[in-house]
Amino acid sequence: MPLTTSWLIVLGVVVLALAYVAYNYFRIKKMPEGTPDMIELSGIIRSGAQTFLKTEYKSISIVVGVVAVIFTLFVEKTAGITFLMGALMSSIVCVLGMQSATYANVRTSNKARESLSIGETVKVALCGGSISGLAVQGFGMLGLLAVLLCFGGVKHDAESTGLIAGLTCNPYIMRISTYSLGCSIVAMFNRVAGGNYTKAADISSDILGKLRHDLPEDDSRIPNTIADFIGDNVNDIAGNCSDLLESFVATMSASIMIAVTLYQTHGGKVADTTFDATILFPIILAGCGLVGCLIGLGLANIKKMGDNPSRELDLSTWISAGCTVIFGGVASYVIFNNVPLYDDFKLGWASPWVSSIMGIVAGIAIGIITEYYTSTDHKPTQKLAEMCTEGEAFVVTKGDAVGSRSVLLPVFVIIVALIISGVLGGSYGIAISALGMLAFVGATVSIDAFGPIADNAGGLAEACHLAPDVRKITDKLDAVGNTTAAIGKGFAIGSAAFATVSLIMAYVGNYTTVGEPLSLNFASFFVVAGGILGGALVEYFCAILTDNTIDAAKIMADVGDKQMTQEVLDGKAKPDYNMMIEMAAKEAIHRMVLPSVLALLIPIVGGLILGVEFVGGILVGATIVAIPRAIFMGNSGGAFDNAKKYIEQGMLEGHGKGSPAHKASVTGDTIGDTRKDVVGVALDIFIKLMSTVANTIAPIIRNFKLFG
Amino acid sequence: MPLTTSWLIVLGVVVLALAYVAYNYFRIKKMPEGTPDMIELSGIIRSGAQTFLKTEYKSISIVVGVVAVIFTLFVEKTAGITFLMGALMSSIVCVLGMQSATYANVRTSNKARESLSIGETVKVALCGGSISGLAVQGFGMLGLLAVLLCFGGVKHDAESTGLIAGLTCNPYIMRISTYSLGCSIVAMFNRVAGGNYTKAADISSDILGKLRHDLPEDDSRIPNTIADFIGDNVNDIAGNCSDLLESFVATMSASIMIAVTLYQTHGGKVADTTFDATILFPIILAGCGLVGCLIGLGLANIKKMGDNPSRELDLSTWISAGCTVIFGGVASYVIFNNVPLYDDFKLGWASPWVSSIMGIVAGIAIGIITEYYTSTDHKPTQKLAEMCTEGEAFVVTKGDAVGSRSVLLPVFVIIVALIISGVLGGSYGIAISALGMLAFVGATVSIDAFGPIADNAGGLAEACHLAPDVRKITDKLDAVGNTTAAIGKGFAIGSAAFATVSLIMAYVGNYTTVGEPLSLNFASFFVVAGGILGGALVEYFCAILTDNTIDAAKIMADVGDKQMTQEVLDGKAKPDYNMMIEMAAKEAIHRMVLPSVLALLIPIVGGLILGVEFVGGILVGATIVAIPRAIFMGNSGGAFDNAKKYIEQGMLEGHGKGSPAHKASVTGDTIGDTRKDVVGVALDIFIKLMSTVANTIAPIIRNFKLFG
Repeated sequence: MPLTTSWLIVLGVVVLALAYVAYNYFRIKKMPEGTPDMIELSGIIRSGAQTFLKTEYKSISIVVGVVAVIFTLFVEKTAGITFLMGALMSSIVCVLGMQSATYANVRTSNKARESLSIGETVKVALCGGSISGLAVQGFGMLGLLAVLLCFGGVKHDAESTGLIAGLTCNPYIMRISTYSLGCSIVAMFNRVAGGNYTKAADISSDILGKLRHDLPEDDSRIPNTIADFIGDNVNDIAGNCSDLLESFVATMSASIMIAVTLYQTHGGKVADTTFDATILFPIILAGCGLVGCLIGLGLANIKKMGDNPSRELDLSTWISAGCTVIFGGVASYVIFNNVPLYDDFKLGWASPWVSSIMGIVAGIAIGIITEYYTSTDHKPTQKLAEMCTEGEAFVVTKGDAVGSRSVLLPVFVIIVALIISGVLGGSYGIAISALGMLAFVGATVSIDAFGPIADNAGGLAEACHLAPDVRKITDKLDAVGNTTAAIGKGFAIGSAAFATVSLIMAYVGNYTTVGEPLSLNFASFFVVAGGILGGALVEYFCAILTDNTIDAAKIMADVGDKQMTQEVLDGKAKPDYNMMIEMAAKEAIHRMVLPSVLALLIPIVGGLILGVEFVGGILVGATIVAIPRAIFMGNSGGAFDNAKKYIEQGMLEGHGKGSPAHKASVTGDTIGDTRKDVVGVALDIFIKLMSTVANTIAPIIRNFKLFG
Repeated sequence: MPLTTSWLIVLGVVVLALAYVAYNYFRIKKMPEGTPDMIELSGIIRSGAQTFLKTEYKSISIVVGVVAVIFTLFVEKTAGITFLMGALMSSIVCVLGMQSATYANVRTSNKARESLSIGETVKVALCGGSISGLAVQGFGMLGLLAVLLCFGGVKHDAESTGLIAGLTCNPYIMRISTYSLGCSIVAMFNRVAGGNYTKAADISSDILGKLRHDLPEDDSRIPNTIADFIGDNVNDIAGNCSDLLESFVATMSASIMIAVTLYQTHGGKVADTTFDATILFPIILAGCGLVGCLIGLGLANIKKMGDNPSRELDLSTWISAGCTVIFGGVASYVIFNNVPLYDDFKLGWASPWVSSIMGIVAGIAIGIITEYYTSTDHKPTQKLAEMCTEGEAFVVTKGDAVGSRSVLLPVFVIIVALIISGVLGGSYGIAISALGMLAFVGATVSIDAFGPIADNAGGLAEACHLAPDVRKITDKLDAVGNTTAAIGKGFAIGSAAFATVSLIMAYVGNYTTVGEPLSLNFASFFVVAGGILGGALVEYFCAILTDNTIDAAKIMADVGDKQMTQEVLDGKAKPDYNMMIEMAAKEAIHRMVLPSVLALLIPIVGGLILGVEFVGGILVGATIVAIPRAIFMGNSGGAFDNAKKYIEQGMLEGHGKGSPAHKASVTGDTIGDTRKDVVGVALDIFIKLMSTVANTIAPIIRNFKLFG
């Protein structure tokens, strides 16, 4: 079957999935919103979230536009278009995800109110989440298929230039990497701005409530609370969707780029049918995953739900993963069984299949490990909670230790998967392994998005004073969301690590001359210097994000404080929520520029001055530092958060809510907030964006450097 | 001049320096100790410190003995002896440094009491410090010269095996690397145990004083205070001496090993005179530095001191550094002017000289940057102090940001020095640059050791209720010690980074077959996997050290608490200090084994299973993560410490001692203590030890691996 036909079949699946997304979207929208209070509050949240996105996209579109013009003029004629395509897909997913989540949250609490059934309520929240999840996978594939189908697929021997500049590159490769880059840039902006928005609002609320006015959490007299509410959607829905979309697209792109490199390092001694098979498989595997997600999520939608939501959610992930494995095996057999194979494929046609399974298993294992280190059911978080009795300094030090300790096992899983898939399938195997982990991203993102929807539903139920029965249901959903979030984070971190490793391998392929062996030699002092610099840049990036968050929080606290007049404190007047919502957006957006531009410029400037191998060093260094740091940030933050909950649930004898131990645990939680929701998640995208930029410019600058 | 004659001349300088050490030691010992109170208390400190060392060396000698036997039997016949030599030199320096510091501290406060002159007092403390400093450099060189002179120098083409095993290696290289390894292992034990000892004592005192009984700091009713006092000597003197000795020896060894590699990669087409010159220069450069130190410290000893001790101390560093530059230039000219040179030497005979200057300049620059980020005179620490008004969570988050931000500039300095010395002198230039930074280590360690001596002198003056005039002098000395400590830390971190980079280069040379190009290829997934693992191991190592410290502190607090009966609290009875001193030692020593053995075994096990390139990946990954982490730990800790002092000095208007802001700053300081005094300093030695182990086993395992 010719490539184009196969792609068209996958396109059919994608269209089907997007139709299902549309169906769910309108189904959710038609559901009743509940009491007038609920309608009003959810309206404020929705319009606040929309305002944020509108403001943000004004800035993003300028940067994206400028970069697209530069690409068209100086890199490759069509690269501007494909770059815009990537940015567009990422943006659609953000807007759609946020819109559907802000519809779903209030309808979830209303369903709880009307049905008083856990199963029915879970269905609404999951349906809302599945819009985000399936959109991520569907639009990510739609854009790539459009690039492939409109520009005639992938050829390994073409050459082209920009409209003005003269350096040549392979336009097919360039289109794929710029498509991926478009997704990356939007994701970077979303992650950085979203993290800043949500945490500045959250922390400034805490300063006003806990430190300055001694009010309970989320008290409506604090003007910053509604911004805090919106923040959950901005970061956990929009940020997460664009982040995972980025990872997913990057692994598909890296697989295709590595397939080209593989062909070229074999000096053209490989059959064209083999080349076509390696180009085709990544798209087909993603298609298999998408079918799996449709089955898994569709079943959850149709069948009657029991009262154990955790099991139901897990089940839909397992079904999606299982289908991906089964269909992936069939696809691998059909595609690779009748073509001559590379020597690297130690298991013949089964090599890519087994590699994809390695990725899936690794993702799940990392999720389980993450849960172990951050859940109140296990020792690390329990011990952290116990340490709260010795005061703030001990909690923080112990939390640091938990975070650092939690790094080793996930990394061990990553390298075992890396080595096995490398031994069985070479660098192509590694790329496919990364893609395998993300092939059913639709399901994982759906479950991820379930969390903030349930969280918001609970908040709405409380703010609108719904009955205790209803609260009980939404509380249960919230708790489930917290657990599933751990597994989602495991996937996000694991896939970022895998994606970056395959992007670096693709990068080395992109700068290596056809027919020469791949080399990124750390016996060269230039490369070592790059490595050390890359690591330090990650630390610097962490510093910028952290400082941005607390600076914004401090400013927002000071402005909010002025509104807390005696009238407001007595409950006789309402503070100006909108002012704080707009302020949070403004602060977040103007602070997102420096770190994003840094990630964009480092590989370009470094490459022009000291060459492609130096940049290779930077990428390796940044990745090696960012992986453990991201895990540290996520897990120490998660453990702090849950240690606080552990104490609040009265599990630490003699130290309940309001005790000094509880106060210490709140301090830990606040510190952890910035770590897990701002810095940790942004690190993943930082290394992916740098690697994608490097991949894009590698063919252009490979023969150019100022020094050395 | 034949090599042996040159080495004998250097040996003469070393003997001269050690004679000067002995002279100062007995001069200090003869000085009067002061009041009976002072004699008693300093006696307790001295005997406590001795007890710790005795207990520690029981454990160390077992490990060292076992390793020495293994080396002799399975690696190289004479390697056990040279390994013991390294361990011996490191141990001598520790014991001598600690002994002289515990003599000097009480005599410093007594000199202040008798003379009431800052200048005279500084002289005593500096004289005490110079014993440690010159011993580090003198014994480090003595051991290496003994190895070279006893076993006939360095030959590039010899082969030998262990008494039992059959794998061959170059015995000359093996002797040098095992000598260096002997120093490393003792340093590792000292750093890990010393850090645990001092901080467990310190933190447990804080728990008892501040959290449980509301007593002032260092109150004599807290049984853990004397152990805290002793800790300063254990960590800041013994730990620091063996750490810097290790760096110094490692850079000399790496230079020699790289000289051999250089000769071999040129396939024997290089003159023997060139080879001899590259082997000779490192020793001569170290000798030049030693002469510089003797001049710099000797002048400080002879001349009349003014009342600005900071200037006087800086002056002796500058003189030592200046002499090293001048003598180093002459030596480089004499040694390299008349021999054919490698193509890498872009500046001819001046290449090694300029490289060494790069190292010196980089060390000083890093010191200055460190001071900027951690001193109360500059913005970062001042802003951190201001953040204290917003509570604990903000201080910690801001401190994290300061620590992360402070990483970039030092790393920038390191890579600029690395690239310049690499461009001008190749890998040999990089090794010499690292050695240049440490060539006057005698002076930097002397100034470093001044700090804890002055600190202890102040403590003694306070505990023995000396007059306010005397306290003023010792306070002044203490403040100076804090500033100079920053520069010392800069040198320690910078030199560790440089030493490790040259050790990694030497390692690649050690496993590469003669005549083949050096390669450590990160385009191979095995190497990438190693890199990611190396980074995660550093995080894990941090976690072990942190957990060890707070666990030991908690146990010590609980035991100490039982002694704080009403009688003790009323001041009617004295608590059992000795019990706590012994307990601190016991806790520290049994906890030092796991992390040390980890550093020893990782390269060996990794190499046997997945090969030398995998281990190369581990070393690179560990270094890339450890450099920024070590800087982060040191600088965030330093900034926390000084932010607290800033508030205590009343510099933050409206927030003095005892205010909530001050309380928050104390929390930051406690968190920072573990970071800077336990984790940060141990990271340096962790990566150096792993690299030295890898260097030692590289020739043995280079053709062996189980998988891949």
